[in-house]
Amino acid sequence: METISTNRAFEGIQGVYRHQSESCRCPMTFAVYVPPQAQNRPCPVLWYLSGLTCTHANVMEKGEYRRAAAEAGIIIVCPDTSPRGDDIADDDGYDLGQGAGFYLDATQAPWAPNFNMYSYVNEELPPLIARKFPADMSRQAIFGHSMGGHGALTIALKNPDTYRSVSAFAPITNPIAVPWGQKALPAYLGDDRSAWRGYDATALIEDGRKVPEILIDQGGADNFLPEQLDAKAFVAACERAGIDLTFNLRPGYDHSYYFISTFMADHVAWHAARLAD
Amino acid sequence: METISTNRAFEGIQGVYRHQSESCRCPMTFAVYVPPQAQNRPCPVLWYLSGLTCTHANVMEKGEYRRAAAEAGIIIVCPDTSPRGDDIADDDGYDLGQGAGFYLDATQAPWAPNFNMYSYVNEELPPLIARKFPADMSRQAIFGHSMGGHGALTIALKNPDTYRSVSAFAPITNPIAVPWGQKALPAYLGDDRSAWRGYDATALIEDGRKVPEILIDQGGADNFLPEQLDAKAFVAACERAGIDLTFNLRPGYDHSYYFISTFMADHVAWHAARLAD
Repeated sequence: METISTNRAFEGIQGVYRHQSESCRCPMTFAVYVPPQAQNRPCPVLWYLSGLTCTHANVMEKGEYRRAAAEAGIIIVCPDTSPRGDDIADDDGYDLGQGAGFYLDATQAPWAPNFNMYSYVNEELPPLIARKFPADMSRQAIFGHSMGGHGALTIALKNPDTYRSVSAFAPITNPIAVPWGQKALPAYLGDDRSAWRGYDATALIEDGRKVPEILIDQGGADNFLPEQLDAKAFVAACERAGIDLTFNLRPGYDHSYYFISTFMADHVAWHAARLAD
Repeated sequence: METISTNRAFEGIQGVYRHQSESCRCPMTFAVYVPPQAQNRPCPVLWYLSGLTCTHANVMEKGEYRRAAAEAGIIIVCPDTSPRGDDIADDDGYDLGQGAGFYLDATQAPWAPNFNMYSYVNEELPPLIARKFPADMSRQAIFGHSMGGHGALTIALKNPDTYRSVSAFAPITNPIAVPWGQKALPAYLGDDRSAWRGYDATALIEDGRKVPEILIDQGGADNFLPEQLDAKAFVAACERAGIDLTFNLRPGYDHSYYFISTFMADHVAWHAARLAD
């Protein structure tokens, strides 16, 4: 692992690191904020998964998570959203290929060799974080935005013993049913729709996966809400499954980091309460 | 005035606007955050001046001022750092010309027609803000970073009745004596060093200008500190003049927005206390 940069912030350290990923077969960059409390004891880890077109850097620069993380004593890890490179497959659209990994393991050409973000986030990065940072890996949580909210929800639902809590900003909750998913899922996973259900939060709940509770904030003026982010099926699935879902519709807020940063401290504090010893 | 964008944030509105500047003879872009309190009453105005290479956007995206501004009920205005455009004079260096206006009124060719950021910030923009936003212009304050800290200090010292308070992050306090100033001041103002003193915070204080108090935060690991930001002469001048200077040296912090954002809330709250009715 190579250190790209470190900057002191809120008495902790915001770092950017690069390593050779086995899952993605390319160098991958990620950001880690280590709070001041880590000087004295291992700290819990909160994973933040970003949305379409983003790298590790967008939320690091615009997400305003450091104050809350420093107050709560939480490490925040921000992976990239896909493998990247001139020799990595890509698509002309912003919603498939580089910057659009959808936190799944692809099975189809040309994506399968590199697009394995599910394994990368869930299996490859955690041991690296455990080795290189003062992290208490018995206390992990996960959240994300849009495509990253989809990632957080699906990863948490499939690994409820690993992540103590899960939340999301404006997540894709039912990719099977919306244009973003209907483009990405067949490209990465092929035409067998049963494979898609393994990466759809609503379908996972319908198929019996469960977490105790979920926190979601959704902007009411989000231009992606009607077509891509409609959560009715997800809300209904949570209700049927007995999942304690808090769904905050925020009038006037859009899909941007202005929305994310506004509610970031709420989410970090919510996870912090669940990550306490 | 044209609206470029508005985004809801912390229950207020972060906007970006463009207008034709008379002082700079070109279109100028600026950012304004209007807090939720402005729905009910005019709010005080805190001006933020950015540093070399920045536009209005850097602090808007990375400065983390909105939470504090929304709590305190303060409008924050972030101007650009210079005139801009293909037909505007420029220099190959990052520290002269576009992105490096130094908050002065240039008298020398080729800069004089457009590079009038002192008049722009101090005389042209305030009436526009007063007309277009729910601002209480009887309550204004000013702060900034690096070159923008220099701008805030010099503008406040020359207009103590306009700005109730002034603070800075890592300001250039004595441009006459450092390489950045020794390049920019002769280019913009010519070789008469007496003209330079009108845009040097230390010289202004030595020449009798005064404000009651100043707040400065300076990173101890700032790579520009030794050569460009040394504040010994400024501290001595404040002491001789009886200015109540709080100078916080922050070990380990650099010159970046990670430093600025860490201490942003402190500065906004400090100004808010002085802008209260």
